[in-house]
Parts: sequence; structure tokens; C-alpha cells
Amino acid sequence: MDRPDRKGRVDILRVHLRKISLDEQVDPDTIAALTPGFAGADLANLVNEAALLATRRGAESVSMQDFTAAVERIVAGLEKRHRVMSEQERRTVAIHEMGHALVAIVLPGTDPVHKISIIPRGMGALGYTLQRPTEDRYLIRRGELENRLAVLFGGRAAEALVIGELSTGAADDLGKATALALDMVTRFGMATEVGQVTYELPRSPFLDATGQLHAERPHSEATARAIDDAVRRLADEAFARASEILTARRELLEEGARQLLSKETLTEAELAPLAERARACQ
Amino acid sequence: MDRPDRKGRVDILRVHLRKISLDEQVDPDTIAALTPGFAGADLANLVNEAALLATRRGAESVSMQDFTAAVERIVAGLEKRHRVMSEQERRTVAIHEMGHALVAIVLPGTDPVHKISIIPRGMGALGYTLQRPTEDRYLIRRGELENRLAVLFGGRAAEALVIGELSTGAADDLGKATALALDMVTRFGMATEVGQVTYELPRSPFLDATGQLHAERPHSEATARAIDDAVRRLADEAFARASEILTARRELLEEGARQLLSKETLTEAELAPLAERARACQ
Amino acid sequence: MDRPDRKGRVDILRVHLRKISLDEQVDPDTIAALTPGFAGADLANLVNEAALLATRRGAESVSMQDFTAAVERIVAGLEKRHRVMSEQERRTVAIHEMGHALVAIVLPGTDPVHKISIIPRGMGALGYTLQRPTEDRYLIRRGELENRLAVLFGGRAAEALVIGELSTGAADDLGKATALALDMVTRFGMATEVGQVTYELPRSPFLDATGQLHAERPHSEATARAIDDAVRRLADEAFARASEILTARRELLEEGARQLLSKETLTEAELAPLAERARACQ
Amino acid sequence: MDRPDRKGRVDILRVHLRKISLDEQVDPDTIAALTPGFAGADLANLVNEAALLATRRGAESVSMQDFTAAVERIVAGLEKRHRVMSEQERRTVAIHEMGHALVAIVLPGTDPVHKISIIPRGMGALGYTLQRPTEDRYLIRRGELENRLAVLFGGRAAEALVIGELSTGAADDLGKATALALDMVTRFGMATEVGQVTYELPRSPFLDATGQLHAERPHSEATARAIDDAVRRLADEAFARASEILTARRELLEEGARQLLSKETLTEAELAPLAERARACQ
Amino acid sequence: MDRPDRKGRVDILRVHLRKISLDEQVDPDTIAALTPGFAGADLANLVNEAALLATRRGAESVSMQDFTAAVERIVAGLEKRHRVMSEQERRTVAIHEMGHALVAIVLPGTDPVHKISIIPRGMGALGYTLQRPTEDRYLIRRGELENRLAVLFGGRAAEALVIGELSTGAADDLGKATALALDMVTRFGMATEVGQVTYELPRSPFLDATGQLHAERPHSEATARAIDDAVRRLADEAFARASEILTARRELLEEGARQLLSKETLTEAELAPLAERARACQ
Amino acid sequence: MDRPDRKGRVDILRVHLRKISLDEQVDPDTIAALTPGFAGADLANLVNEAALLATRRGAESVSMQDFTAAVERIVAGLEKRHRVMSEQERRTVAIHEMGHALVAIVLPGTDPVHKISIIPRGMGALGYTLQRPTEDRYLIRRGELENRLAVLFGGRAAEALVIGELSTGAADDLGKATALALDMVTRFGMATEVGQVTYELPRSPFLDATGQLHAERPHSEATARAIDDAVRRLADEAFARASEILTARRELLEEGARQLLSKETLTEAELAPLAERARACQ
Repeated sequence: MDRPDRKGRVDILRVHLRKISLDEQVDPDTIAALTPGFAGADLANLVNEAALLATRRGAESVSMQDFTAAVERIVAGLEKRHRVMSEQERRTVAIHEMGHALVAIVLPGTDPVHKISIIPRGMGALGYTLQRPTEDRYLIRRGELENRLAVLFGGRAAEALVIGELSTGAADDLGKATALALDMVTRFGMATEVGQVTYELPRSPFLDATGQLHAERPHSEATARAIDDAVRRLADEAFARASEILTARRELLEEGARQLLSKETLTEAELAPLAERARACQ
Repeated sequence: MDRPDRKGRVDILRVHLRKISLDEQVDPDTIAALTPGFAGADLANLVNEAALLATRRGAESVSMQDFTAAVERIVAGLEKRHRVMSEQERRTVAIHEMGHALVAIVLPGTDPVHKISIIPRGMGALGYTLQRPTEDRYLIRRGELENRLAVLFGGRAAEALVIGELSTGAADDLGKATALALDMVTRFGMATEVGQVTYELPRSPFLDATGQLHAERPHSEATARAIDDAVRRLADEAFARASEILTARRELLEEGARQLLSKETLTEAELAPLAERARACQ
Repeated sequence: MDRPDRKGRVDILRVHLRKISLDEQVDPDTIAALTPGFAGADLANLVNEAALLATRRGAESVSMQDFTAAVERIVAGLEKRHRVMSEQERRTVAIHEMGHALVAIVLPGTDPVHKISIIPRGMGALGYTLQRPTEDRYLIRRGELENRLAVLFGGRAAEALVIGELSTGAADDLGKATALALDMVTRFGMATEVGQVTYELPRSPFLDATGQLHAERPHSEATARAIDDAVRRLADEAFARASEILTARRELLEEGARQLLSKETLTEAELAPLAERARACQ
Repeated sequence: MDRPDRKGRVDILRVHLRKISLDEQVDPDTIAALTPGFAGADLANLVNEAALLATRRGAESVSMQDFTAAVERIVAGLEKRHRVMSEQERRTVAIHEMGHALVAIVLPGTDPVHKISIIPRGMGALGYTLQRPTEDRYLIRRGELENRLAVLFGGRAAEALVIGELSTGAADDLGKATALALDMVTRFGMATEVGQVTYELPRSPFLDATGQLHAERPHSEATARAIDDAVRRLADEAFARASEILTARRELLEEGARQLLSKETLTEAELAPLAERARACQ
Repeated sequence: MDRPDRKGRVDILRVHLRKISLDEQVDPDTIAALTPGFAGADLANLVNEAALLATRRGAESVSMQDFTAAVERIVAGLEKRHRVMSEQERRTVAIHEMGHALVAIVLPGTDPVHKISIIPRGMGALGYTLQRPTEDRYLIRRGELENRLAVLFGGRAAEALVIGELSTGAADDLGKATALALDMVTRFGMATEVGQVTYELPRSPFLDATGQLHAERPHSEATARAIDDAVRRLADEAFARASEILTARRELLEEGARQLLSKETLTEAELAPLAERARACQ
Repeated sequence: MDRPDRKGRVDILRVHLRKISLDEQVDPDTIAALTPGFAGADLANLVNEAALLATRRGAESVSMQDFTAAVERIVAGLEKRHRVMSEQERRTVAIHEMGHALVAIVLPGTDPVHKISIIPRGMGALGYTLQRPTEDRYLIRRGELENRLAVLFGGRAAEALVIGELSTGAADDLGKATALALDMVTRFGMATEVGQVTYELPRSPFLDATGQLHAERPHSEATARAIDDAVRRLADEAFARASEILTARRELLEEGARQLLSKETLTEAELAPLAERARACQ
């Protein structure tokens, strides 16, 4: 059910445009730029609508105006069916994903970023940053876990830095970061104020494939507070690190977001120049 | 099962009045004004009763007095079946709904108000203010959530301002506002005193279609207090903003409520002049 | 299964007494006064027993003594089956119900009292004060809810004032008053110390027809205390208001209770003179 | 399965003794005094054993020594099957039950004592004091409830006074007293420090036939403490009242216990002289 | 499945040794001393193995060396199947059981010790001290319960005194002692700081045959603390009493343990001299 | 499913290499060193691949280069199927397991180490240190339990000492140590600040074969805190002891880890020289 990115739409459009005669100035890339969020069927529909409009006005070939009018008509229908993201939302998502990617690129020892995209995938996710899967790592050191936390906060830190305001888009990142920090504190004994013991808490889905809820050991209010404080401290430190990394690379962040808005998906190769500059920076 | 508003009752009455001979002074709009809460069947019944009364007193055409007497008789019956709102209740509902509408009109970035009504809909709701549906928004910024909170408190603030006393009518708004504020604090990390972590709490029905109850992570009393305080602070700030907006537009609020009491439903077009004045008001 | 009041017993007795010859001094009303708590079948039985006693002593007509003896015999049996209330209990119930009624009569905006009775109804209730049903009110203002609380405390306040000692008879009133106060505090946002948010608590049966238990949001001890304090404050204020109203009308209260003890049931019409004097009392 | 008291054993023995020839000094009452805890079958067995022993020693009639020897043999067997209470235990039970009875006799308004016994009844109860059943009282005043509490503590107070040491025998009384005090505090609003509200707690079996567990309203720690304190205060006051009553009547208590030890059961008539002296005592 | 003690093994060995010819110096008691933990079948196997070894070396009769070698071979096999207790463990168990026995012997009013053993019985128990069963006592006084607590702590106190270090062997005693102390505090009202009320807690298995879990009454943290403190105080006092009794009889304790190690089981008669000296000791 | 260690791979390789002609310099041990994590089937596959490569380049015998190329090709495939541990991870595991082993070797009274390995076994465990099974010990003294705790912390202490950073690899050790410390505190009464009573907590799987969850006795916050503190103190002391032992033997630790990395498994005999030096130290 994934929708194509801009380049994908150009490819699809070329196939459908072959079948009709076009004015000279009609350009698949311009149409693709007008149609973010269109699925393949929507694009096929668009070409038909434009051809129909041309026929109605007695023209022999389809003009760019026909396409613009058809886009408007279809967008109205699409808005009813499943709302397309606004420009502002798309920009926020681009900033957010580029934030994740830059923090991951800069921090040593984190997995390489393979792909970054603002095409929504599945329910809930507005964009994604794809790192090499890490679930089957055997043994992860504290420093690596802290880096993972910072990457998780990269999107939120980027929004705060560039948009200047938080949004609901980081809820999923926050949930994963909380689960990871809780594991560090209550399962791996990595917080000195809580100590080298485990506390049976509902299992985090992040590092444990079984997803089981462990029986809970009742602990004291003092311990509950120490756990809360340690989790918050880990989260705050990770956010601060992500913010620092992005503040020092703000121009890159905005430039990268612009690229992402334009192409919608960036591969590891396309990210390479940005990554090089990001690593070179200070 | 929705009952018609005043204009709707005029239309229904015209249909039924065609079938009988009327005194000259009989006016469908006057009868409609006497019959808030009447369903279509009640109005058909009313016309029959009035005709019967005229026949009994040997008259050839139905007078306004016949209609008045028939209304009284039917209201008594209706009161037994399902109590019609009192004038005082209807006025409170009108003030309440106009409060929601004005706050929504004034705050930038909130969705436009399409319709506002004091006709009860379904169980529990005494009136309604219809904004463009917002559930399928992808990404909502903190400022927008604060505006939504203020709109939710608009009804309560209007009651406090004009009636000078709170009522049970705002319970549903309070529930929604609490759920939204809780989400801001425990799911979106938007309260600094609670921090950038999530707390697993029973899910709010406001932003999550699944309605699932999340497993609860036991947190400390200190954190529970911080959450309670943050939620209350958000609610208090939103109420204060709504009150400020309405205090500055009190005359508009009362004038709009009078229009609503009279017409029972106002469309976006009918609201336009009020909206323009509300936005102009500095 | 409701048992008849004194007037009802007179009517039933007249039917059965017609069938036997009586001494002149035998008076149905005197017999009814001796037989509080008797059901219709008990009265039929009484007339048969009295006739039997007369036959045994060779008399031709049944004397008042025969009835007195028969009452004693039957009461002993009744006591075994279902204990009849003692005089002291009946007086306490009369004071209690008259307390409810007077507070309801005096407070503006409360529903009119239709009937008041000390005939037990169903299980648990020893008497009742019938107000026009209020469950289907759409919207109730804070002041009205406070008046309802005061009416609920009217019975307890009357017992404290006249009997000088509390009893178990007010348990049901206390439960309803607690549920209503809880709703005011945790559902309608009417207590400033708790704030304009809702707290998910077990639902009160008073205002919500569904009777559902809502999921509970864990809140802090500080909030739990604020809720407890607000509920107690509302209850104490309502009790104080009821006490003040009844103290100013103590003679009326006792006089009304005496009437109720004598007639067992008072209708709205029979209450009218008391109500007029109660309202006049400043 | 109830075992007979001393008088009952005499009656049973007379039946069995008729069938054998006895020495002159053999006395059923003396044998009954030796056989507390014997059931009817045990007594029949005893007479057979004694007769057998007489036959073995070639005697023509059964002597008192034969009975004594047979008792010893049977007691050993009984001890294995179901341990008979020791003298010390029987005395403690007698003191305990007489304590209940004297407090009930002295306190005005408590139900009359019909029977008092140290014959174990059913499982768990070592003795019993029978008052007229009070469950179907409609309305009970605070003072009456306090008297009931004092009666419940009468047994424990008597043990403390005469034996000078507490025992496990009062556990059931403590449970009933706690349930009653809890009801006074959380259901009938009779403790000023807790207030005129109800707290949903597990229902007491004492006053509520349904035995249902009510849904629990979460209340604050401060309220939980106030409830605990109020319940303990009611219990302490009731124990103090019971102790005071018994201290003033210590001789009567011990004399009554001796009578109870001897007869095992005392009826209302047999208690009358003790009751008269107890009430006279100032 | 119980394994025989030393004397039992001698008897079993005699039966099996009859069937083979033995060197003169072979002594059943010496072999029994070498074979703690051997079951009957193990002993039969031992005799066969020893005979086989003698045959292999061409001897006509079985020597003591044959038995020693056979024991070693079998012990290795047994160790695999079910580990035999080490000498150190056996000594600790002997000290532990003798501790229970001496405290029970010395404290007035506790039930007589019938048998004491270091032969493991069933799962978990390493040894046992058998007192006359006390479960069907009707009524137990506070002082008796305190003595029972002290007996329960006798094993632990003996280990602390003689071994100088605690072990896991007292876990079962601690559980029973905690349950008993909890009953004294929350069921029998025997702790003044908690008061004469009951607290519904999970039932102890010690005094209640039903083993039911009672519904729990929520009590305050202050009360929870008072209960914890009272339970710990009772436990500490009982341990102190047991320690005091054993410190004053340390030589007897060690001497008794040596006897127990040697004979593995001591009957009431065999304990009599120790008991006499223990009671004489002031 | 266990994969062979280096020596095991040499044996397997010899079998397969027999079937093909090899260059002289081809050495099974060199190939085994290149193939950690290879299963038997992987090695068979390797030999086939190498032979194929030799055939393709027209060679008559298989060279070491053919094997190196085949290894690279297969590793890429294996990485997809089940990620092989990195060198860094293998070193961390070796340090960790050697830490367990050295602490176990040095502490008196702990069970002898039979085998130590960095071959993953089953799910979750990255390596293992095999001690004689201790589950069926009857009675364990406090000092022994403390030694067990120190052994459990040996891996974590070694990582902290040599790697200088904690990892997720110790989570299982922490869980076992917490369960054991909890047992010492709440089941065996070994913490003076908590006292000689038991607290019903979810059962630890460490010492109790049944794995049952015991009913939980509600205890006070003060007690909960004392338990938490005692558990943390035991854990901290055990970690400190393990650290001290390993710091004094750091060279041995690293040398042992190198041997383990090279051989992957060390038997008791192979460990003997290290053990001797470890015990001799200080």
C-alpha cells in the first residue's frame, strides 16, 4: 500500500503518458511535483481526466492546464478519502527524519543509514529512517545504547531547533526511547542511583522478542522515584546530545530536509555527500 | 431521531397546513416558535388536534387559539414521554455552544466552524459545534493542541461568564480536555516538569482510534503528582485563554446566543458576519 | 407487597366488617390505629379471629375487646414472621422523612414534594419522600446540585436535631450524597481545589443511567486527598444548610412528623398548609 | 453433632443404667460430672465397658470404681479421636461467655440473653451466648451500636480481667466488632474525623444479608488513616466500657462462670438471679 | 521412601550378612556408620558388591576392606542419583534440631518432644523434632503462642550460637513463625500498637485448616507499618528467648547434637536424661 | 544445535579434507581459526566451495587462497542467516566468562569450574562457565550464598575492569543475583535491617524448583524500602568483592581471556595452571 515517491511517480507517468498526445510543454517531472501522495491508480486516473478535459474543449493534444485542472479535481476527491499531508506537515516530517539521519551519521558506532524517506509507511509512521537492523546484536555496550537513545531523539531535537515547536509526531520515538532507557536502568543495571539489581517491570518491546510481561516485584516509593529520575536523566542527556549535534549542523539539516522534500526518498548513496560534510564538521 | 429546528418545523408545518382551512392570522412561523423539541410526527399531530378543536366549537376554519390550545395539550403529553428542555436550559446551551464557536473562530489555525446548533443530537449532547473533522490529521503541533484545549473550554468559559454559574453540561468537554492534556503530558512529552518520556496510562479516545488500554508502568508518587499538576496547569491556561477571548467579545457572545436560540441552527454562512466581527475585535 | 396505610386499612376493614354483626362501639378507624404494618390478608384474618372469639364466649355480636384480643394474638405471630417497626422506630422514620420534605419545600428550585410516607417500600427503605423525577433533566446547575445535596441530608439533620442521635437509617442517603458530591468534584469540575479536569472513578449511579465503571486513571496521593477534602466539604456544607433550615422550623418539623405518624402518608395537598408555613418562616 | 450438657448426660445415663445391676453408691450425676464432652454413643459405650470390667472381676453388680476405670479407658480413646477441652480451657470459655452475658444484661437497650452455654457448637465456637436475633431490626441508633460493640468485647474483657492473659478464643468476636465499627465509620457516617460520606469498602457480613463486595473507591492515605484511627477508637472505647462493667461485677462474673462450668448451660430463668444482682450493682 | 537410621541399617545389614561368609573383624555397626543415607536396597547392593570384590581377589570370606571399597563405589553412584548430605551439613542439622528440642523441653507448657531426628523426611525438611500435635487445641493463650514462637526459633538460634553463621535451613521455620506472629497481631488483637481490631490479610496456614485467602481491607500505611513493627518485635523477642535458653545450655546442646549425629534418631526415652539436665539447669 | 569450537572444527575439517587434493601449505588449524561460528555443515560447504574455485581456475589442487575466498563468500551468507559475533563481542564474552571463572576459582567453598566456553549455547547465553550443579544442596550457609553472589558478579566486574564499560551481556547474571539477594533478605532472614521474618514475594527461580508465586503479604513502605536497601547492599558488596579479586589478578584475567578466545573452550584440566596461579596470588 506504499505510495511512490517523486521519481517513482515520474516513471509511472511516463508509462501512462505514452498513450496520449501531449502539448510540447507537458513535462512528467512537473506533474510529479504536483502530485505528492498520489498512488499509481491515482496517476492513471489523472492522465485520463486530463485527456477528457482536453477532449471536452475540442483540443487535439493535452495541455499542462488540463493536467493542473485534473489534479485539482482529484485532490478534492482524495482529501475526502484520505487526507494528503499539508506542505507544512511534509516539511516538519522532512526536518524530523533528517534529524534522525544526521545524528545517526555523526555518532561513531551507530549503524549506517541506508535510506531515509517522507513517504508514509503503514499506519502511524509519517516518514522513516532506515538503519541496518540491530535486533540480533548479541551484546551491546552502554555507550552504544546511549547513541541509540540520541538517534531516537534526533527527530524531536530537529523539530525543536528548526520549527521551534514540538509536535505529536515524536510520540513513537518517545515510547521507544522510554522503553530503552527503562531497560538500561531496570534490566542492565546501568544507572548508579538505582544500583546493580533488576526490577521486574513490564517488558520493553525493544530488545526482547518475546514481549512477555514479567511478574512485578513490588518496590518502594524511594526506588520508584530513583528509577523515574534515572530514566528522565538518560532521556534528557540523549536529547541534549542530539540537539548539540544538530545545532552545529543546522545548515546541513535544513539543506538535507529540502533535498528530502524534493526527492521524498534519499538512498545511502544520495546521502553520502551530506554525510561526509556532517562528519567533517567539527 | 434528530428533531427539526425552527426553520425545519416551518417547512413541515406548511405541508400539513395546506390540507386544512385556516384563519387569516395563522402563521406557520409563529407556531414553529411555540414548538421547540417537536418532531415531525408531533407537528402532524398538532395540526390534527387544532382542526379537531375547531370542529368541536363549530368553526369553519382553524384559528390561532386552536393551535395554542393544541400545543398545550401536546406539550403535557410530550413532557411525560421525553421532557422538553426548559427555556433556561435552552439559553444555557445556546451560550455554551456559541462559546465554543467564538473561541474556534478567533484562534488562528483551528478548523473552521461549519455549523452550530442547540438541537440535541444522540444521547447526552445538548447542542453541538461542528468543526471540520480533525481526527485524521497526521501531525499536530503543540500550539494547535493548546488551541484545541481552549476551544473545548469555550463552552464552560461562556457559561461562567454569562450565567455566572457552572452546570453539568460541560462534563463531556472536561473529559475530552483531560484526555487531550494527559496525552500532551504523558505521550507527547510536552510538559517540562514531567520530561521527555512516556508514561503508560489508559489510552485517551481522542487521538487514538484503537482505544486500547496500554499496560501501565508503575511510577513514583512524585511523578504522579507532576503529571497531575501539569494536566491541571494546561487545563487552567486553556480556560483562561477561552475566558479572555470571550470577555473581550461578550456582546457578540450574547447576540450570537440570541440568534441561535431563535434559529436553533446557524450555518457557516449565517455565522460569517459574527465571525468577521469576532476576528476584528482586538 | 406494599402494606396499606391507616386510611387504606380503614377501607379494607369496612369491606370485611360488613359481613359480621358488630357491637355499636366498634369503629374501623380505631382498629386501623391498632394495626400499623398489617397487610390486607392480616386484616381479613383479624376480623375472622375476633368473630371466633365472640362465638367462643357465646356473644351474638363482636365487641371491641374481641378485636383487641385478636390484634394481640396476631401481632405475636407477625412478630415471628416479619418484625413490625417499634413506635420509636416509626417516630424516627417520620422525623427523618419530614426532614427531607421540609428542606425540599423550602429550597428554591428543587422539585415539588408529591407524597411522603412512613410505609416501608421494598427492601431497605423505611419511608420515602417522593419528588418529581429529576433523572431526565438535561443540564443541572451547581446551585441546584447543592440544593439536592441539602435535601439528601435533610433526614439525617432532622434526626440529629430532634432525636439527638444518629441512626443507621441514613446510610442510603449518605451513599447517594457521596456519589453526587464525587460527581461534582471529579466529573463536573466544580471544586476549585481539584481543578477543571476529570478523574476516572467508579461511576455514580445517580446521574448516569448506564452504571458503568470507568477505567481508573491513577492519580497522585495529593490529588486523592484534594478529592476527599472537597467531597467532605460539600457534604458538610449541605448538612449545615439542612440543619439551619430545620432548626428555624423545628416546631413545624415535629408537627409534620406527628401528622405523618398518624396518617402514615401525606399527599401534596395534605402537605400544602405545612409547606406554606415553612416557606413563610423566615 | 452437638454433645449433651451435664443434665443431658444424666438423662442418657439413666436410660442405659436401667439395664444393668448397680452398686448402691453408683450415682448418674457423679458419672455425668466425670464425662464432659461425651456424646450419647460414648455414654452407652461407657456403661458397657464398666459392666464388662465388673464381669471380669467376678462381681455381680457394677461399682463406681468400674465406672471410673471405664471413663479413663474411653477418655484415652476420645483424646485420640477428638481432643476434649482441658479443665483450664473450659474455665476460660466459661469466663468468656459469662463476660458477654453480663455486659448484655447490664447495658440498657440490648437484647435479652436467652441462653448461655459452654458446649461447643459447630466448628470454631467454643461456647455461645444467645441473644434475641437482631438482624431484622430496621433502624439502629448509634448508642445501640456502641452497646453491641461493648457486648462483643465482653468475652475478651472478662478473660483479661480474670485470667489475666488474652487467648485466641476472641478472634471471632474481634472480627465481628471490627466489621461493625467499620460500618459505623464508613457506611453510617458516625465518626466525625471521617465525615458524613461513605467509603466503599468490602461489605461487612454483620448488617448486610447480601454479603456483596462493593466496588472500592480509591481514597487518600490521609483518609485511610482517619478510618483506621476511628475504628480503633470505637473498639478501644467499647473494650473500656465492657471492662468497667465487669470490674465492678467481678465476683458475679466468677460466680456465674462457676455455675456455667457446673451446669454447662444456663437458661434465661437460671440466669435471672445473677441478672438481677448485676443490674442492682451500681 | 524414608531412609533407615544407623540402628535400622545395622538390622538390615544383619539380615543380608547372614547369607555370606565374613572375616572375623567385619562388624555390622562399623558398616552402618559408613553408610548414612543408604536405603535398604543400597545396603543389599553393598553386601553383593563386597562379596563380588572378595570373589575377584580369590578370597573365601569377605573382608572389611571389601566393604570399604564397595561403599566408595556405591557412594559415587548415589551422589549422582541423590546427593547425600555432607558431614558439615549433617552436623548443622543436628545442632538445629537439638535447638528446637531443648527450647521445647525447657519452656513450661509446651508439648512434650516425642522424637527428634536428622533423617530427611519428604521434600525440603532435613530433620525434624516431633511434638505432640497441637493443631486441634481449642483455645491457646498468648503466653503459649509466645512459647511456640520461641520453639520455632530454637533451630536458628542454635545454628547462630554453635555454627556462628546462619543457613538456608531455617527458611521453613521463619515462614511458620511469621505466619504465627501475623496471626497474633492481625487476628487475635495481641499487639497493643495495632489495637483490638482485625485486619483482613491472607490467612496463615498455621491455625486455620481452610487455608482460605480472606478479602483484604485496605488499611493505611501507618497501620501497615505498625503491623510490620509488631511482627518483627514478636519475632525478635522469641529469638532472644530461644538464644538465652540455649546459651545457658550450650554444652548440653553440643552433647545432644553429638548423640543425634551418632544415633540419627532420639526417642523421648533416649532424650530423657538430656531433658532432665536441661530443666535442672538454671 | 551447538556449534563446534576451534578444535572441533579442525577434527571436522580433517574428515572433509581427506577427500580432496590440497596444496602443501593448506593447514586445517589455519582454516579453523578463520571460521569461528561455523557449524559442521558450513565447514563441509566450505571445502566444496574451495574445491570448486580451484577447478574454475584450472588448478589440480586446492590452495589456501581458495579457502580464504570461500570463507569470505560463506561468511556473507551466514551473516544474513544468523549474525556471527564480531571480534569485539567475542573478546567481551571471553573477558566476561573468565571473570566468572576466576572468582569461582579463588573463593573458598565454591564449586569447582569444570568447563568455560565462548560458544553460544541456546538462546540468550553468549558463553558459559560450568560449575558442578548446586541445585540439590540441602543447606547453604550465608557465606556460601555471598560467594555465589560474587561469582555471579564476576562477569560484570571483569567487563568493567578490562573493557571499562558495561554491556547488556550481564542482564541474566543481574536477574539471578537479584533473585538470590531477595531470597537472602525476604526468605532466609539474613538482613538485620529487615529482620527475622519472611515477606511473601514472587518466588525466585534460583533455589525453588516449583517456581510458584507465593501470595503476597502487603507490607509497609518502610519495609519495602528496607528490603530494597538490603538487596542493593548485598549486590554492591558482592560486586566489590568480585572486583577486588579480579583487580589483583588482572594479568591472569586477560591472559585467560586470550586463551579462551583462541581455544573457545577450556576444560578443568586446561584451566588448572591458571587456577593454581590465581589461588597463589596474594
